Amino acid sequence: LSSNSGFSQSAEESNNSVFQDWRFKYGEKGFEFRSGDNNYLLQIQSRLQFRFATPSDNDPYTFNNFSDNSNNVFKVNRSRLKVGGHAYKPWLKYYWEYELGQSNLLDYRIMIERWEWLNIKVGQWKLEFSRERRISSGAQQTVDRSILNRSFTVDRQQGVELYGRLRTKGPLDFNYWLGVFTGSGRGARENDDKNLMYFGRIQWNMFGENLGFTSSDLGIHQKPAAIIALAGVTNRSPYTRFSSSGGGVLEGFEEQNPGQYRINQANLETALVYKGFSWQSELHWKNIQDRVNNQETKLNGFYFQAGYLAHQSLAWWPEPLEIAARYANFTPNTLQDYYLDEITLAFNWFFKGHRNKLTMEVSEFDLETADVGIKDEFRFRIQWDISI
Amino acid sequence: LSSNSGFSQSAEESNNSVFQDWRFKYGEKGFEFRSGDNNYLLQIQSRLQFRFATPSDNDPYTFNNFSDNSNNVFKVNRSRLKVGGHAYKPWLKYYWEYELGQSNLLDYRIMIERWEWLNIKVGQWKLEFSRERRISSGAQQTVDRSILNRSFTVDRQQGVELYGRLRTKGPLDFNYWLGVFTGSGRGARENDDKNLMYFGRIQWNMFGENLGFTSSDLGIHQKPAAIIALAGVTNRSPYTRFSSSGGGVLEGFEEQNPGQYRINQANLETALVYKGFSWQSELHWKNIQDRVNNQETKLNGFYFQAGYLAHQSLAWWPEPLEIAARYANFTPNTLQDYYLDEITLAFNWFFKGHRNKLTMEVSEFDLETADVGIKDEFRFRIQWDISI
Amino acid sequence: LSSNSGFSQSAEESNNSVFQDWRFKYGEKGFEFRSGDNNYLLQIQSRLQFRFATPSDNDPYTFNNFSDNSNNVFKVNRSRLKVGGHAYKPWLKYYWEYELGQSNLLDYRIMIERWEWLNIKVGQWKLEFSRERRISSGAQQTVDRSILNRSFTVDRQQGVELYGRLRTKGPLDFNYWLGVFTGSGRGARENDDKNLMYFGRIQWNMFGENLGFTSSDLGIHQKPAAIIALAGVTNRSPYTRFSSSGGGVLEGFEEQNPGQYRINQANLETALVYKGFSWQSELHWKNIQDRVNNQETKLNGFYFQAGYLAHQSLAWWPEPLEIAARYANFTPNTLQDYYLDEITLAFNWFFKGHRNKLTMEVSEFDLETADVGIKDEFRFRIQWDISI
Repeated sequence: LSSNSGFSQSAEESNNSVFQDWRFKYGEKGFEFRSGDNNYLLQIQSRLQFRFATPSDNDPYTFNNFSDNSNNVFKVNRSRLKVGGHAYKPWLKYYWEYELGQSNLLDYRIMIERWEWLNIKVGQWKLEFSRERRISSGAQQTVDRSILNRSFTVDRQQGVELYGRLRTKGPLDFNYWLGVFTGSGRGARENDDKNLMYFGRIQWNMFGENLGFTSSDLGIHQKPAAIIALAGVTNRSPYTRFSSSGGGVLEGFEEQNPGQYRINQANLETALVYKGFSWQSELHWKNIQDRVNNQETKLNGFYFQAGYLAHQSLAWWPEPLEIAARYANFTPNTLQDYYLDEITLAFNWFFKGHRNKLTMEVSEFDLETADVGIKDEFRFRIQWDISI
Repeated sequence: LSSNSGFSQSAEESNNSVFQDWRFKYGEKGFEFRSGDNNYLLQIQSRLQFRFATPSDNDPYTFNNFSDNSNNVFKVNRSRLKVGGHAYKPWLKYYWEYELGQSNLLDYRIMIERWEWLNIKVGQWKLEFSRERRISSGAQQTVDRSILNRSFTVDRQQGVELYGRLRTKGPLDFNYWLGVFTGSGRGARENDDKNLMYFGRIQWNMFGENLGFTSSDLGIHQKPAAIIALAGVTNRSPYTRFSSSGGGVLEGFEEQNPGQYRINQANLETALVYKGFSWQSELHWKNIQDRVNNQETKLNGFYFQAGYLAHQSLAWWPEPLEIAARYANFTPNTLQDYYLDEITLAFNWFFKGHRNKLTMEVSEFDLETADVGIKDEFRFRIQWDISI
Repeated sequence: LSSNSGFSQSAEESNNSVFQDWRFKYGEKGFEFRSGDNNYLLQIQSRLQFRFATPSDNDPYTFNNFSDNSNNVFKVNRSRLKVGGHAYKPWLKYYWEYELGQSNLLDYRIMIERWEWLNIKVGQWKLEFSRERRISSGAQQTVDRSILNRSFTVDRQQGVELYGRLRTKGPLDFNYWLGVFTGSGRGARENDDKNLMYFGRIQWNMFGENLGFTSSDLGIHQKPAAIIALAGVTNRSPYTRFSSSGGGVLEGFEEQNPGQYRINQANLETALVYKGFSWQSELHWKNIQDRVNNQETKLNGFYFQAGYLAHQSLAWWPEPLEIAARYANFTPNTLQDYYLDEITLAFNWFFKGHRNKLTMEVSEFDLETADVGIKDEFRFRIQWDISI
């Protein structure tokens, strides 16, 4: 007597394999369709980020931005379709992500992940250069990334990468990433010159756990987990910064000739989670060499960020509530007396982890210059981020 | 003896819930994947609207449009991907709709629908301001909306809304909608000023049935169902009209300064269905206050529309065939002698309700001005709209 | 005792039909969801094409393109979402394809395929005018199409088409296509004038098999299969060429007035497969009549292409490896001494047929003119194309 006979495709075979007994689930990555032999997996997830901001949603970074205009804005800030899984074999993985509101293809990549110590990725994705950029906008601890992100992120690039984890039973436990990219940003169709972008990152998993790119200690680690990472990238292109829109310009770098800018960047990063407490920091250096005008500019900046699920200490504190804070400091040009800093205080209410979360945030921005003194601005934002 | 054991994910539990026995269907909203506990639902639907029009597809609204050019056009006029359902709980609903041909995100919204009398919606969607705009382009009784739509629709906005149904067993049966929106139209990323859009609608369900936003009495109501609704909206923005493209300009309002226009609008709406007959009407007022040039403009217009599945009366009339007609009248400026009207006659052949429908339509447009007298134009269109 | 009772939607019926026992598969067209009665089918496939090219990815076609610039580029060259299947009945088919990276809707079509000899297609798709254009970019024998494609393809159009296969048991075995289109290219919303595009193709299936639009004899035909086809198209529009971007201009035809160009084109095509060997050729004529400047231009060109899965002859040759070559010759203007040709040598490694394939290719381009003599350029490309 055969149960399930109606469902299994008994006599019906595809050219390549037999598929019996598909399995269905709603999991971390959305709706999930998996073949019985686990050679094929399709995951479909939609994500909506709804935001209210006042007086403005953007981070201020010049004097003009520190204006007195007060605009209230409600918006669908992010609207994503995410499709991933694997095909042919469990280790041949794919993922793509499309921003529906802006009609931008963000990620599109294939990963060959057969061995822990050596994997290959090809396509377009966010480089593993900096933690806060790499963490999904839906899994941030605050409403959005710090004031550093605009100037230091390498963002999404197209290329090839080797990566893996090297470890012994002892304290030797490292993750590495080594990649070559066109270096012209998201969606680029051509390179401006022969020069490619080279990227590397080495990460020490201090207590034998790879924390990954996540924030908030929702799993309540009973043993501490921590990483220290150093990342570097070099590129030559017409661009001085990158964003989801592709290559762009920093203030004061409006010229965009092929191969005009050689950019070298480094990032020293830490992260720690323990008993509901989470910490992360980044320390950035960026060197811009203008090969047309023969000039050099140095930028640097850092941030510290910490969060706490305080119900771990306080009996009266609601379990889904996290308090988080960040301090960021940015020097756009080390030769000028011009500094920006940001203090942010945020509260997260996790209905369902990062997949359904309400965040309320207050920030203060300070701009300090030799000429004009200090100017500051407050911002309030509230955001609902939900993945389905 | 356990049947289905291969299919159910017996020992396999997600972090959050156990999912046994998913159910699959092709329903009103397309392909449907539902978890056994009904906490998760994914619906995927594609819609194609294929249209032939001559001499032109657009409604004429100025003298230049009433030209003698005759262009034949076949086109994929609408091509939609619709994804919806619910997640986490049956009452936490989501929906998004993407126009593939134009690469526009149309709807993206979350609805918390726990109680009949109080629901919350956040995101971007077509406001419930006017019936013909709110009815899906795939569920119209004619090939497309009337000449009023271009000038009076509030279209899609981003914001938050409360809505619900209040009723007793007696004749007190109302639906209400109250919303606050950025008021800058579909896809806006910023507000131009502090001012938000406020919207309200109250609808009396005369015979205890909420007709919803549909046309054609495909269900052949044996008892009449009817509504009367009054809706109002106020907004201040650089725009004098809205469409699927976002904020836009009416003729004569080319200036677009932040907060230049305060617009107040009202709509009185009726609808009725009974034994295959359907009726709907809208009566619109719109007041545009130009705060820069200190001018005021008043627009108004109305339409009546009726359809009949005549097999209810005539034995020889084919069951899938509906005849429908509309008269619309539009005054772009109450201070000028300038009127537009539209008479449309349409035939719908419902292969599968509105989900697979052929529509043939003839329209006559008249433009009457003090200077030039009357000018008229005929248009013929045929359209196949199919949802899959 | 009823097995499967948990899965089948025993008592639950949709308005239109009963759906028992859905079936799931990963097949040629991706993830597949099929209703038990086979009235509904949804297929979802993602396709990624990742390419490295040096010194440039584009085919050169003017002297400026034959420059000495050497750019290396890695890129996600194509990123497609393909959705298809059937609905309501097995013969009511649908298909749409979206280019995610460029945010372009490529195909969106409905096919009524009830009888072999008479089918109807409406929507937007690549006309069956020329073989190499019609074959999916993922199923090419080389990295991409020949130098002819840019000037001769009719590309995607919006319209209506009748097509089918007429055959007897004897050698009379033909496929035909007859279509009417707006003739303004992909994504056009309006026609420029009254003139439509008319298209026809007749194809003789020489040995009683319709080869379809595919390349490479992956099925290893033991009996030869071959076709000879003649196709013609006439159009009047502002455009002198078409591409995935819609209507465009050939060099020297920068003016774009409504109805400026009457274009007549013909293509004589052959194809053959036998024991791992495959052959295809096209011979093109194109006549451009500029009705504004009263000028006529004639273009022509041809290519031959052959491939061989050499393990059919050589025991040491790896089974997944195909060698292929192409020669193409293009005359942009029959009145000028100006010729372009292309020689391409390619190797395909078929991991999983065309659905997962690595291609390595070297091309040489020659430009020969009366004035300047011969100029040539080499190009190397490597490409991974994977459908999931």
